[in-house]
Amino acid sequence: MKKVNILKPVLVSNHQRAIENRKLFDQMNSLVINIIASPGAGKTSFIKRIIEYFKDRIKILVIEGDIKGQIDSEAISQTGVKVIQINTMTECHLDAFMTAQVLPEIKGSYELILIENVGNLVCPAEFEIGEDFKLAILSTPEGDDKPFKYPLLFHLARVVVINKFDLLPYVDFNLEKAKKNIKKENAHAHIFTVSAKTGNGFEDFYKFLEKELDAKKKKAES
Amino acid sequence: MKKVNILKPVLVSNHQRAIENRKLFDQMNSLVINIIASPGAGKTSFIKRIIEYFKDRIKILVIEGDIKGQIDSEAISQTGVKVIQINTMTECHLDAFMTAQVLPEIKGSYELILIENVGNLVCPAEFEIGEDFKLAILSTPEGDDKPFKYPLLFHLARVVVINKFDLLPYVDFNLEKAKKNIKKENAHAHIFTVSAKTGNGFEDFYKFLEKELDAKKKKAES
Repeated sequence: MKKVNILKPVLVSNHQRAIENRKLFDQMNSLVINIIASPGAGKTSFIKRIIEYFKDRIKILVIEGDIKGQIDSEAISQTGVKVIQINTMTECHLDAFMTAQVLPEIKGSYELILIENVGNLVCPAEFEIGEDFKLAILSTPEGDDKPFKYPLLFHLARVVVINKFDLLPYVDFNLEKAKKNIKKENAHAHIFTVSAKTGNGFEDFYKFLEKELDAKKKKAES
Repeated sequence: MKKVNILKPVLVSNHQRAIENRKLFDQMNSLVINIIASPGAGKTSFIKRIIEYFKDRIKILVIEGDIKGQIDSEAISQTGVKVIQINTMTECHLDAFMTAQVLPEIKGSYELILIENVGNLVCPAEFEIGEDFKLAILSTPEGDDKPFKYPLLFHLARVVVINKFDLLPYVDFNLEKAKKNIKKENAHAHIFTVSAKTGNGFEDFYKFLEKELDAKKKKAES
């Protein structure tokens, strides 16, 4: 009797599809960021800040992952950038196959593709989609212990953005402890502290993103 | 060749195992509440408030679901109640089988069993574990649009607790809109507005829980 092995083949083929997606993104010379956070941590507001700052200089595309609806897509469309919506229905994450399905819709070239994953700290971390890197957002009301409780995401995210810094006086969140907990999972993580609501703290992140965009451009030219 | 069908049998047998669990909980005369929320929405603080109010009158057990670690179990143990920890490792939810595995550890009788599910609004809603009802917590910093974005949980939860009401002046959260969005998914949901941090707003919830405990007791006696 043939052995049936369920979990591994699914993840292996997702990985293979993610490699194919990455090749296609590289051919488009696009820097692709997979943005992962809890529901309501501020993913959409964070994306809107990036668009606001960069949209006059580069072409930006947003891929929106949601179980249902298109509230965030509508909010982002108002900035004038192109948005592609993926509704996952019952799936709690985007995967490489769902992303592959929308790739033919990408016409023209975009220097920056921002992918807003489904609000969840667990499964989105398990499924690559072809991104250059993962960016995790942790908001202060969630507490400084989240890197310890959801270690895979914080282990894999090259960038961690601590958002809702404006709420710090009103919540129990120790910034130094949070940074220490993040560094324990990933010593090389780039950590930024911002308020997507007020716009404070974004200068360092914008500089970092400019460098990443330059590096991708140089790679494309070489 | 035998047909291999993956998803449906998994959920069917989880449902069957949940029915078995519920029978066992009923034999113990325990009211069992499955508490589901985003990471950092305040599940542990909410549970601690319930323990504080009820622990001198009834016996309470807490089952803690976490990917990794036992931070919350340690915090709850300090109240003096018994806690059983389940670490799901890579799974983003508790299911009926994981719960069944710890049932033999329950010695004695508990009028109230509080199950703190893994922080996630998607998958925990899909897997019954044998509870009397699901209780969803939505915290104000997450935004009032969450019932629309994560409809299954809000459709299934008999009780929705809006937490972190103390942060209302500092966040974009419209209480009436949130209630309307919850009622759209579930017209019969009991909605309570509280601050687990300050203790405000719990009176109505305590009254509701007292009635549920009484109803379970009467059912056991009949």
